[in-house]
Amino acid sequence: MNDTDLPDTLDPADDTRLDEDDRLKPEFVTAVLDAVEDGDAEAARALVEPLHPADIADLFELTPEDRRKDLAAAIADLVDADVFAEMNDYVREDLIDALDARQVADIASELDTDDAVAIIEDMEPEDQREVLRAMEPDDRAAIEEALSYPEESAGRLMQRDLVAVPEHWTVGDVLDYLRGDEELTTDFWEIFVVDPGHRPIGTCALSWILRTPRSIPVGDVMKREQTLIPVDMDQEEVALRFQKYALISAAVTDAAGRLVGMITVDDIVHIIQEEAGEDTLRLAGAGDGDINEPIAVTVRTRVAWLIVNLGATILSASVVGLFQGEIARFALLAALMPIVSALGGNAGTQTLAVMVRALATNQLTSSNTLRMLLREFRVAICNGIALAAVGATGSYVLLGHGGLSVVFALAMMINSVVAGLVGVIVPVALDKANVDPAVSSAVFVTTITDVMGFLSFLGLATLWGLGG
Amino acid sequence: MNDTDLPDTLDPADDTRLDEDDRLKPEFVTAVLDAVEDGDAEAARALVEPLHPADIADLFELTPEDRRKDLAAAIADLVDADVFAEMNDYVREDLIDALDARQVADIASELDTDDAVAIIEDMEPEDQREVLRAMEPDDRAAIEEALSYPEESAGRLMQRDLVAVPEHWTVGDVLDYLRGDEELTTDFWEIFVVDPGHRPIGTCALSWILRTPRSIPVGDVMKREQTLIPVDMDQEEVALRFQKYALISAAVTDAAGRLVGMITVDDIVHIIQEEAGEDTLRLAGAGDGDINEPIAVTVRTRVAWLIVNLGATILSASVVGLFQGEIARFALLAALMPIVSALGGNAGTQTLAVMVRALATNQLTSSNTLRMLLREFRVAICNGIALAAVGATGSYVLLGHGGLSVVFALAMMINSVVAGLVGVIVPVALDKANVDPAVSSAVFVTTITDVMGFLSFLGLATLWGLGG
Repeated sequence: MNDTDLPDTLDPADDTRLDEDDRLKPEFVTAVLDAVEDGDAEAARALVEPLHPADIADLFELTPEDRRKDLAAAIADLVDADVFAEMNDYVREDLIDALDARQVADIASELDTDDAVAIIEDMEPEDQREVLRAMEPDDRAAIEEALSYPEESAGRLMQRDLVAVPEHWTVGDVLDYLRGDEELTTDFWEIFVVDPGHRPIGTCALSWILRTPRSIPVGDVMKREQTLIPVDMDQEEVALRFQKYALISAAVTDAAGRLVGMITVDDIVHIIQEEAGEDTLRLAGAGDGDINEPIAVTVRTRVAWLIVNLGATILSASVVGLFQGEIARFALLAALMPIVSALGGNAGTQTLAVMVRALATNQLTSSNTLRMLLREFRVAICNGIALAAVGATGSYVLLGHGGLSVVFALAMMINSVVAGLVGVIVPVALDKANVDPAVSSAVFVTTITDVMGFLSFLGLATLWGLGG
Repeated sequence: MNDTDLPDTLDPADDTRLDEDDRLKPEFVTAVLDAVEDGDAEAARALVEPLHPADIADLFELTPEDRRKDLAAAIADLVDADVFAEMNDYVREDLIDALDARQVADIASELDTDDAVAIIEDMEPEDQREVLRAMEPDDRAAIEEALSYPEESAGRLMQRDLVAVPEHWTVGDVLDYLRGDEELTTDFWEIFVVDPGHRPIGTCALSWILRTPRSIPVGDVMKREQTLIPVDMDQEEVALRFQKYALISAAVTDAAGRLVGMITVDDIVHIIQEEAGEDTLRLAGAGDGDINEPIAVTVRTRVAWLIVNLGATILSASVVGLFQGEIARFALLAALMPIVSALGGNAGTQTLAVMVRALATNQLTSSNTLRMLLREFRVAICNGIALAAVGATGSYVLLGHGGLSVVFALAMMINSVVAGLVGVIVPVALDKANVDPAVSSAVFVTTITDVMGFLSFLGLATLWGLGG
């Protein structure tokens, strides 16, 4: 159940397989796949064997979908539990589907609870039951318990193997216990000190144990102030808490405050990365943006977003429709109006991106929202002045029409300010309404900046008598 | 030089100061600032004292700029080195400016090398020299060495305090050494085994040491396969390596392969978060998107991006200009054309976001680029069909013009496919050219989708004779 007995791994600097960014080289991938295609499983295994499990998982992701099962068959004995744990969900599901319940159960039994749960939680309920039936009672109980917690909660992430000792034990007692009990987990970074009710009362880094004489009680070495993780906490909050308090591991407690598990930072690092990166994808309406997901899923997600945006553009198109007469009389308006709306959209997206990040990292709170709105307002004024100056000069030089240039500049100015304000107000309001601002803000912001762009430019042009 | 002697910290679940997301409550911030304003430093300190250094740092970030120095003066003894280490760069610089070299030197001396470097590296060269002169020779040497490495490299991130032992030592020797040497660092998670030339040959998790009898040599316990970090490696690569191989700490080596430092995962977690999050900001042209940066910096970054986009929109506007005659004769074209370009932009941005993430996480490599291009092409065809169907139906119902609806549908179809292709090709090409695809892709992609949107719609309309 641990990483220490992995096959010999590769020095990541080895340059026949990995490039300088630790990515598998295309020639290496091709060499392996060619060997598989030639039916030379021996050669394929010789190539793959020195790889770290994370790299073997990458190899599967880089292999075209229709050739993954052949690869798996050729190097079957190298595709162990650790490789499955490192694999992308979709790629893994695909391979797991080809295995019977017994084989999946064997893989899951070798993993930490959290990794086993990650493999089993995505299976069909029926397959899941079959796999669980095929497992040892202990392992099955641990996984069933984990599955009883909500998805993406601390309960799914935690491992149950941890070291907890009573406060009155001495450092010597702890050392003897650790050396004596074969059943204990080997990978842990801190031990937890618990009261008789098994509630955590302190945490002890292993380095402190190592640097303290045997006779001292752990109660004197431990840090009493701990960051506890409630078992039902969302993984995003867990990740932020690990980050904020620079945790290596943390005790997970149930509603009664009892120690039920431990989360270690290595299980959190990929969540931090995912959560921080997913805003990029959500703002763009690209869903999870997983390049391994089935095309049907990708299309469904993206089309939904595009149709919403299509609906929104009808609003701005209808604003343009109001000014058909002016446009027919002065068609240059049609050429400049998209510039005003596009730049409003750009400016609004800038502010929006900053606010979404600030919300996601807990930097934007009720304490500073008003200050940020004022800040963005000032930035927007400056942006507006700059755009108006450059835009007016440019359009005058190119088109030589004074009135048009003035209207163009004023509209840019107005739309910049609108963009700055809605870029703050929309995400903050959605966040207050418990809607993920990354998912829904962009369409609101760009619709408003489109409408205001067309309305201000065409409206001012009409007032100025440009299309008259 | 460690975290263990922090002031007593607060249980993050304490609900008088922190909300459920571990953010300081606005009432708490107001209470502290009110006390400062009333000149009641005692009351302010009583409120702030139980906070974790990370929360005290947050308090400064949530305080308006012009009141931060008063706050710092009121709670001066609570603003220790750890608080500075947790603080946003701009906020810290602001406060540091108010201190003399002696005070900064004292703060820096209390920190791990990496945190001290983070504080000193941003100072003016002259102030930097003065601070360094005020430091103890040992501390100064460590920091000067760190500053000799490139910015954002492993050399700046690493700490020099680590435990390295020779291979022939037994576990007992290690335990005696750790207990005997007062000077050793207290916070470490692994020890490094080195050869006589001080080159790392293995790593030993502390838990393995704790679970092994005293008589066993560390050479038998250590893992020989290690992930070494070259001292000049960029921090983004370091972060990816920590993530990929789930590292807790790693040895940093110089060009000769000698062990010169150690990086621990807690120093990396915020880099992982920053690097993953910054794509959101870069794609939007919002620079670092730091809400604490001076407004002038924000404006400069954002205006530069807006002007580039303004230039790009002139291209698409000139396409519209080509069709002035058609638009004057049939002004409805002006209302529908922004829809085609906007939806192309949306679709292109979806693909772009997915590709930028895949590049940043090393999932998109030469091995699968072609496959991804094909995948996005298929997705784009599906998107295009859906948009064309909905768009044509909608426009026919609303406007009742058959020819216009057909042209609209065809243009949407064409632009979807263009969007999908450039959404892959642009970021991949920029990445190949060693240009950050997150920074520059968006303007290329949206310019192409704008131009193609206008060109395909207005061009087809002309061919169909709509503006004739």
